[in-house]
Amino acid sequence: MTRVAIGIDLGGTDIKGGLVAEDGSIIQTYIKSTEAHLGGRKVVDRIGDLIQEILDSEGMQGRRDDLQGIGIGSPGLIDQEKGAITRPVNIPDWDYWINVREIFQDRFGLFTWADNDANVGALGEALFGKGKGHKVVLALTLGTGVGGGIVVNGEIFHGACGFAGELGHIMVNPSGPVCGCGNEGCLETYASASAIAKYAQDRIRVEHIPSILKDMARQNDGQVTSKMVYEAALKEDPVALQTVERAGIHLGIGIATFAVAFNPGIVCIGGGASKMGDMLLDHARKELEKRVFFHSHFATPITQAALGNEAGFVGAAGLALTSRS
Amino acid sequence: MTRVAIGIDLGGTDIKGGLVAEDGSIIQTYIKSTEAHLGGRKVVDRIGDLIQEILDSEGMQGRRDDLQGIGIGSPGLIDQEKGAITRPVNIPDWDYWINVREIFQDRFGLFTWADNDANVGALGEALFGKGKGHKVVLALTLGTGVGGGIVVNGEIFHGACGFAGELGHIMVNPSGPVCGCGNEGCLETYASASAIAKYAQDRIRVEHIPSILKDMARQNDGQVTSKMVYEAALKEDPVALQTVERAGIHLGIGIATFAVAFNPGIVCIGGGASKMGDMLLDHARKELEKRVFFHSHFATPITQAALGNEAGFVGAAGLALTSRS
Repeated sequence: MTRVAIGIDLGGTDIKGGLVAEDGSIIQTYIKSTEAHLGGRKVVDRIGDLIQEILDSEGMQGRRDDLQGIGIGSPGLIDQEKGAITRPVNIPDWDYWINVREIFQDRFGLFTWADNDANVGALGEALFGKGKGHKVVLALTLGTGVGGGIVVNGEIFHGACGFAGELGHIMVNPSGPVCGCGNEGCLETYASASAIAKYAQDRIRVEHIPSILKDMARQNDGQVTSKMVYEAALKEDPVALQTVERAGIHLGIGIATFAVAFNPGIVCIGGGASKMGDMLLDHARKELEKRVFFHSHFATPITQAALGNEAGFVGAAGLALTSRS
Repeated sequence: MTRVAIGIDLGGTDIKGGLVAEDGSIIQTYIKSTEAHLGGRKVVDRIGDLIQEILDSEGMQGRRDDLQGIGIGSPGLIDQEKGAITRPVNIPDWDYWINVREIFQDRFGLFTWADNDANVGALGEALFGKGKGHKVVLALTLGTGVGGGIVVNGEIFHGACGFAGELGHIMVNPSGPVCGCGNEGCLETYASASAIAKYAQDRIRVEHIPSILKDMARQNDGQVTSKMVYEAALKEDPVALQTVERAGIHLGIGIATFAVAFNPGIVCIGGGASKMGDMLLDHARKELEKRVFFHSHFATPITQAALGNEAGFVGAAGLALTSRS
């Protein structure tokens, strides 16, 4: 018998879901548009429909007794105790709390757990990715923002009331760029894929600076992307190289703070910008070495995450596989 | 029956010890000079002698059966699993590891736990001070340096290999003053009692700036202390007020990072500089409010610690009262 669980990753554009085995392997995946404009209740109905599709799928045949329940990763504030979600910023018209545990328990007779999407992503990496076997895992996702999560002994660290792990909003420069959270100089304003693209975009606006990014952007409605920055950096474009260095250095400053405060056994970097690999991470490693005691530096390996786009629903399934109802 | 434990606080100048009851009340206290110049083995002998004095004391009468063991808070790296201490920076000639558990087990037949002095101070505040009843407690001590500790569900959070909680070395300004750890702009370089004194001292060197601190320092071999800064600030001296504001703002920047990363239920500030109370902490609270989401601000009260100079050995006794042999 292999225990399995259904994992759901609720995004602003798509709902991704899958049937996942206890070793993290994916048995079946489904995707559905979120249709956020329809409002929270309808979105939750659509999640339910996707769960129904998974339950009816081929992969589920003969596994109903091994099904541990449903895990959901969602943006917004989550009441993990109750299994309720509130206010995902990208879904308008959401009732103050929607208790997905009650809703799916009623509809499917399956216990449901919910947690923050960044937290379940970290849990997935801790259980099934590079964090496997480590007591304290810190995971960062460099995407539109910088998501984060801390996993201790295989469980998400929630802090006093569920707000812990907002690692994109630790401060790496008190007078840095303004962040969406209201603070200045958050890690997110330097190391997110968006921040990387924006910085390069601002740089190439300066006329006398030569950069192949100018041509690349012209072919994309004038928009630089973090992927373009990576490609240009591979060709040793000076603006791109400097942009990657800036992101990596500030990532290292942030990780230095995590290293002394948390002492993670491993730091896993995922999300779009992490695809730059060592080109980005070597700057972070060098900065970390400069900024912490040698024992903390030695104890804090920085690595590219193993889980890709599936991290969200795989981690959500991990939540159902490791929690107790 | 009230369970009791012996707590030891090993400092560079003094060894403080006491017999502490399970509610944190102090039954008996002893103090002995450290005589650090004699080297580690002799210092450990002196700790043993102090333990013997406590065992022979009036307070111990009729309590031997209720005695849970010995807890030791020490600077330097600690192997909590083994009960061994290495390299306290202020005690020269220390064997690489000294296993105090074995030594005191042999000498007294009592189980011994050891942990970092800042960690046990935080534990004391969490168990018996303002942290009582909170799931996640963060404690900072503003002394010569800035010590820190994180206590989760009544236990010290150690991280992957015991290095967690070095909260004085989180970065609050990447290009701030050089810290003893090698990093720049650590919290310690702004908010320790020494940093407060040093900043005021540097300011009053500038000739045209008027300040009563100039007179106060003159009466103390030219040296400003953090206590003087406090006294001058009470008299609204502009240099002193600005110094306190600078320390408080950077304390708030650091706490903002703790708030989003850890979500502590309470932040307890102890040590010499904390005696300034709200004069200092109000700046930190204001900065925190500016820098984090309202829910994180609301969830992160900053308070003056309840335990004073006894925090060290009371927390060390707490370690023995809450750990399992």
